[in-house]
Amino acid sequence: KMLGRVLCTVLFMGALPSLAEVSQGHISVILLGATGDLAKKYLWQGLFQLYMDQVSSGHSFTFHGAALTALEPGQRLMFDVLKKLACPPDESPNRCAVLKDQFLKLSQYHQLKTAENYTVLNREIETLLRQEGLKEAGRIFYFSVPPFAYTEIARHINSSCRPPPGAWLRVVLEKPFGHDLGSAQQLAAELTSFFREEEMYRVDHYLGKQAVAHILPFRDQNRRFLDPIWNRHHVERVEIVLKETVDAKGRTSFYEQYGVIRDVLQNHLTEALMFLTMELPGNVSRAEEVLQRKLQAFQSLQGLEKNNAVLGQYQAYASQVRQELQKAQDYISTTPTFAGVLIHSESLRWEGVPFLLTSGKALDERVGYVRVLFKNRAYCTQSETLRDAGHSQCKAKQIIFYIGHGALNTPAVLVSRNLFRPVMPEGSWKEAVGQSDLHIFGQPLSDYYVYSPVKERDAYSVLISNIYHGRKDFFITTENLLASWGFWTPLLDSISQQPLRLYPGGMENQHLLDFEMVSGEVAFTLAEPVQLLNPNRLMPSDYSAIQSKFRHSPLVSAWSEDLISQLASDIEKIASRTVAHSGQFHLALSGGSSPVVLFQRLARHHYAFPWKHTHIWLVDERCVPLTDTESNFFSLHKHLLQSVRVPYFNIHPMPVHLNQRLCVEEDRGTELYAKEILALVANASFDLVLLGVGTDGHTASLFPQSENGLEGAPTVVLTESPVKPHQRMSLSLPLINKARQVFVLVLGKGKHDIVTLLSRVGHKPRKWPVSGVSPGSGQLVWYVDYEALLG
Amino acid sequence: KMLGRVLCTVLFMGALPSLAEVSQGHISVILLGATGDLAKKYLWQGLFQLYMDQVSSGHSFTFHGAALTALEPGQRLMFDVLKKLACPPDESPNRCAVLKDQFLKLSQYHQLKTAENYTVLNREIETLLRQEGLKEAGRIFYFSVPPFAYTEIARHINSSCRPPPGAWLRVVLEKPFGHDLGSAQQLAAELTSFFREEEMYRVDHYLGKQAVAHILPFRDQNRRFLDPIWNRHHVERVEIVLKETVDAKGRTSFYEQYGVIRDVLQNHLTEALMFLTMELPGNVSRAEEVLQRKLQAFQSLQGLEKNNAVLGQYQAYASQVRQELQKAQDYISTTPTFAGVLIHSESLRWEGVPFLLTSGKALDERVGYVRVLFKNRAYCTQSETLRDAGHSQCKAKQIIFYIGHGALNTPAVLVSRNLFRPVMPEGSWKEAVGQSDLHIFGQPLSDYYVYSPVKERDAYSVLISNIYHGRKDFFITTENLLASWGFWTPLLDSISQQPLRLYPGGMENQHLLDFEMVSGEVAFTLAEPVQLLNPNRLMPSDYSAIQSKFRHSPLVSAWSEDLISQLASDIEKIASRTVAHSGQFHLALSGGSSPVVLFQRLARHHYAFPWKHTHIWLVDERCVPLTDTESNFFSLHKHLLQSVRVPYFNIHPMPVHLNQRLCVEEDRGTELYAKEILALVANASFDLVLLGVGTDGHTASLFPQSENGLEGAPTVVLTESPVKPHQRMSLSLPLINKARQVFVLVLGKGKHDIVTLLSRVGHKPRKWPVSGVSPGSGQLVWYVDYEALLG
Repeated sequence: KMLGRVLCTVLFMGALPSLAEVSQGHISVILLGATGDLAKKYLWQGLFQLYMDQVSSGHSFTFHGAALTALEPGQRLMFDVLKKLACPPDESPNRCAVLKDQFLKLSQYHQLKTAENYTVLNREIETLLRQEGLKEAGRIFYFSVPPFAYTEIARHINSSCRPPPGAWLRVVLEKPFGHDLGSAQQLAAELTSFFREEEMYRVDHYLGKQAVAHILPFRDQNRRFLDPIWNRHHVERVEIVLKETVDAKGRTSFYEQYGVIRDVLQNHLTEALMFLTMELPGNVSRAEEVLQRKLQAFQSLQGLEKNNAVLGQYQAYASQVRQELQKAQDYISTTPTFAGVLIHSESLRWEGVPFLLTSGKALDERVGYVRVLFKNRAYCTQSETLRDAGHSQCKAKQIIFYIGHGALNTPAVLVSRNLFRPVMPEGSWKEAVGQSDLHIFGQPLSDYYVYSPVKERDAYSVLISNIYHGRKDFFITTENLLASWGFWTPLLDSISQQPLRLYPGGMENQHLLDFEMVSGEVAFTLAEPVQLLNPNRLMPSDYSAIQSKFRHSPLVSAWSEDLISQLASDIEKIASRTVAHSGQFHLALSGGSSPVVLFQRLARHHYAFPWKHTHIWLVDERCVPLTDTESNFFSLHKHLLQSVRVPYFNIHPMPVHLNQRLCVEEDRGTELYAKEILALVANASFDLVLLGVGTDGHTASLFPQSENGLEGAPTVVLTESPVKPHQRMSLSLPLINKARQVFVLVLGKGKHDIVTLLSRVGHKPRKWPVSGVSPGSGQLVWYVDYEALLG
Repeated sequence: KMLGRVLCTVLFMGALPSLAEVSQGHISVILLGATGDLAKKYLWQGLFQLYMDQVSSGHSFTFHGAALTALEPGQRLMFDVLKKLACPPDESPNRCAVLKDQFLKLSQYHQLKTAENYTVLNREIETLLRQEGLKEAGRIFYFSVPPFAYTEIARHINSSCRPPPGAWLRVVLEKPFGHDLGSAQQLAAELTSFFREEEMYRVDHYLGKQAVAHILPFRDQNRRFLDPIWNRHHVERVEIVLKETVDAKGRTSFYEQYGVIRDVLQNHLTEALMFLTMELPGNVSRAEEVLQRKLQAFQSLQGLEKNNAVLGQYQAYASQVRQELQKAQDYISTTPTFAGVLIHSESLRWEGVPFLLTSGKALDERVGYVRVLFKNRAYCTQSETLRDAGHSQCKAKQIIFYIGHGALNTPAVLVSRNLFRPVMPEGSWKEAVGQSDLHIFGQPLSDYYVYSPVKERDAYSVLISNIYHGRKDFFITTENLLASWGFWTPLLDSISQQPLRLYPGGMENQHLLDFEMVSGEVAFTLAEPVQLLNPNRLMPSDYSAIQSKFRHSPLVSAWSEDLISQLASDIEKIASRTVAHSGQFHLALSGGSSPVVLFQRLARHHYAFPWKHTHIWLVDERCVPLTDTESNFFSLHKHLLQSVRVPYFNIHPMPVHLNQRLCVEEDRGTELYAKEILALVANASFDLVLLGVGTDGHTASLFPQSENGLEGAPTVVLTESPVKPHQRMSLSLPLINKARQVFVLVLGKGKHDIVTLLSRVGHKPRKWPVSGVSPGSGQLVWYVDYEALLG
């Protein structure tokens, strides 16, 4: 009956299929870059699918291909593509043929180059609508063009092609959306000057992959089973993986600027990560709620450091780049084509659970999946051979969103049978049967409940349908985009000089790209087998060579990150030795910015530190409340204490805030602290004092020409700083010099002058207080990074 | 050559093999219970093996079997056993036959019943030695008798059978060594009155099992590989298992008194646990060092509660007991024949690692093993099918000490090939080959390095050899024994009324005995399938029925343990809800003994508690320093705060200790605390206040007739307690009554009278301060256990 009506309409209208008969209004789809690769491969097919699906929705359509090419050759190019549009297997060939014919008649090519071209396009649409007596529902502009063209096109659309009031405008943008936070912000700001947020549809075609798109609905529909186990107590690890067999050949002009992290991890895999980690909103199809939860999930992610990633490059890549981009023979590419990244969330739900994002080109297989592996908490008393297959609690428990390709070669959702039988939407997913000989993720397929889509749909068809339906939750909002770049940019910056592991490609990679997690970091499992790509930079293992003397005391020097890691290890070693020997460890820590990195390192990577037996003292403090963000103690707490387990009684903030006032002499805070030290620290000799140095040569809060603390009794003093907040409390130099160990940490170019000066001057504490650091019977070690040492 | 000399000696001496020729001295071995089961099955064979091994050691030997039986029948019984002694397969039949003949000649039966008998035995030994002109090296008394006979025999040995000065005495004792801490202490005290510690050799024949005995040497010899991974960062779990197929039939008179925990877990499995968890001493063969480390390891074990164990009983057991012990038809046995126990160590090395000890009778297979499973920290980029077998880091990593029987049917040490190739002592362990089709612990045998003993030795041969060599590290010292009983007795006490799961036995057990770990507890995986053995006790799920009203407010009542668990859950629920709603949760906690159990429960079982957003306040405090063990805060810190992560700034101890003095009015601690509350708690309304009740009706530190705090302003007050320490600080009743929720926890028979009284009286805060608890706009809930409620 439906078909009859459509046929009638076509016969009646002759050239153009009926537009007038419908009442929901007319939609114009303008595809910019209509003759490009993406358009050829996916977009026209997606638009045709949209037409087939929505022809009787009540909307009428016209499709406008556009490009820079002149009208006639462009027209030819475009219709060559359109003629090849395929009929989906689930469509009757008859209906499809008729609809394809209509679709071709509804499609038109336009050259869009000048401002004039856009005005003309707009006029043509208006004229058509007026002629047909149609109300305009909306316009879709699909940007299938390089991002450098975005702003120009956006300006034209905004000034000449906006639909009349009452009709909507949807502009669809394809990645890349910038290459780091800064460029993404800039692009976003430009676009925002032309379009409202609700008008922009940024495509991440992964959100159109059926298995990815079903993560949130799955979590929602299976709340009953998942609520108790979707957390750190039950999830062992999560793997989000996109492996490709192809390499970047022919695409290096794009790829060389982006690399695998920008190409795959920052967008596709991160979106999957968000669907997994975000708290479920009350309504999973309300875009605004989903976005809020997603942004919260981004907030919870632990910042990435370079050691959170392993990077590789397939061996042929460099020569491909040299050839395609006409680079010199000694050109070295630092673009990774493989990355494995370990991500942690600090949310209550996920704290401690490793999320492994992996992607690469020239790997052994093409496959994409999201795999949630649950902890095995069971002990099975019956011997293995006698256990029921599938239902034993000792078998692995997994939930897998299988994106496609690989052994299954279809999108699928797999749930271990010893977990639960999932609730799946009946219309769109069906239980799969057969193939019982297949093994997947370490288990026979028969150990899983397996569901696959009733109708396998191409990602772009899904996305175009979502654009049509205004389902903004399937697209990347500006906030979402910037949150993601905000998360990835520090890693991208820190790895720009990182060595890459070369791999041969394909099955020959063997175990070369396997990697392991250790203390919150990742590293390749196999030791470095071949040369480093970037041998110029000093490697961590080298720095130990650069040990010598500074001011007659041992000097340890390295790039700052390696220096901090060495310092943290040294502190742990001393702490363990001291606790083993005397049962406790008294550690006095300075404020300032340099130690923050150290605190974070200790908190994150030194799980064996004997915190339970460590006393934490302050070397100095600013006269502000302890909960003030300027307080040294506040920073120490934020970056270290809140992550480790130091007993409450072992934490000794300086009493700068007594009787509700700050550092008033008659409140005798200095006396109080000195007494506390005397009472707890044997002979008032700290086991380790960590100091810094100011550009003026100050250390602790002992400033040049200070009236207090530079000589005299080993005590605690109030001092004056030349910078705000002026009032300070500090250990005195004589008290510091009673310590068994004193480490002085100096980081950064800004300290080069004072370091140079200190290397020459003698003991002049009144001029340069730090020159007075000279433990009576203890040891002094300088930790100075290359930038401070060498300038 | 050796054999020649022995033969000559035998021929020369005629009846008695040469004793005189040797110079190291003579050893007399006296086996008490010489005709008993253990002697028949193992001990005589072990002594014969000792003789074969040591005949040319320079020592001479005589063997004295002893029992209560009269001389002649005893002699006959004993020599029937001796004649059946077997020649080990690795011994030449000729040599063995000659030595067996000698062994028989060196063996003699004695009736040992009266004091006189012992004197005679002693005289005979002395006479023999004098006649042969031998120096006495030492005497071994092997107690293969029921423990009730120990004291009597020990007294006789001590008074009549001690060797002369210069020769040693070794008494060998077989378990059971008591059935709980008290009885073990008593037995130990008695034995200690007769023997010195170094004279006592308590046998745990597991220490003679080759695989168990090799745990420490293995750890020592493989330090290089194990040091980085033998800890909580790398070990996923440890299983220590002894499964038996036999049941207790014929042995119920023993078994019914002991059960599987006393029979197997307290001794055998615990010793294996210690070998795994103890810190390695510098020298692993120095008994004293090993003992010290072992005792430290016991100290680190987390105390066991009833929910740390799952218990079962095979179905036929009860009828076997009724039959063998002539019990009535309605006799119900509460003796477990199966146990799975989850143990945690709190040491820095093992914190959080689950140690699962499992043993049972009537199971599907006979096998013993210690299995250390390492965490999988790797991601293997290559697809499964393309990975190298054995070496992939994604395969399981395990170290297994295979004690015997089972699929391997030999003692063995297995190390996954992707871990390391272990160092094994060449003389005693050899690499095993073949049997590649065998699967063990989820992997083909070819995935492991497999080592088995060069010479498989019976546990008793090993032990007897160790006694001979004075290797006290293979035996259980008194301290060791009491430490073990100290660890197990609380569990044994708490489970005496625990329901047992009935199981059919053998392969039919299916998944019935599988169990799972949840929040530090264990439970059977399958829901209770059959009737409970002990239906008299109220089960946790029942108590919710007993909810009603007390003093017009909701009452929750149950047995104390269940009540605490309910209360902890309720607090977590309120905390989560409050944090979700207002971002923080203000919790005021009382001191005293009742909350301690609650604190421990919250610390151990409520990992999802939103501690990061919780503020902890004190309801009351004693005027002692915070680090004093009497301080409420000290107890709160010890049992709760040191185990969870509450930010330092959110912890609010009462300022009872200001200006180095306690609760002096002019220091204005009460004012300070009141101000702090006002500054942080909206409207000074705590989200939850937890109170207790004293037998005098006091609550918080508000005592009957108190001048302060019962009425007036909502504030903080100093009060006087009738008991020491008299001075207290407390929230006032009006301040408590501003709370949104008040929970009153009342535990124990001792509170029954006050509970009864309170159920009758009205609002009389001056007489019974707790009767004045009546939150203005909040809710009051009473948590009263059955003992307090029902007496």
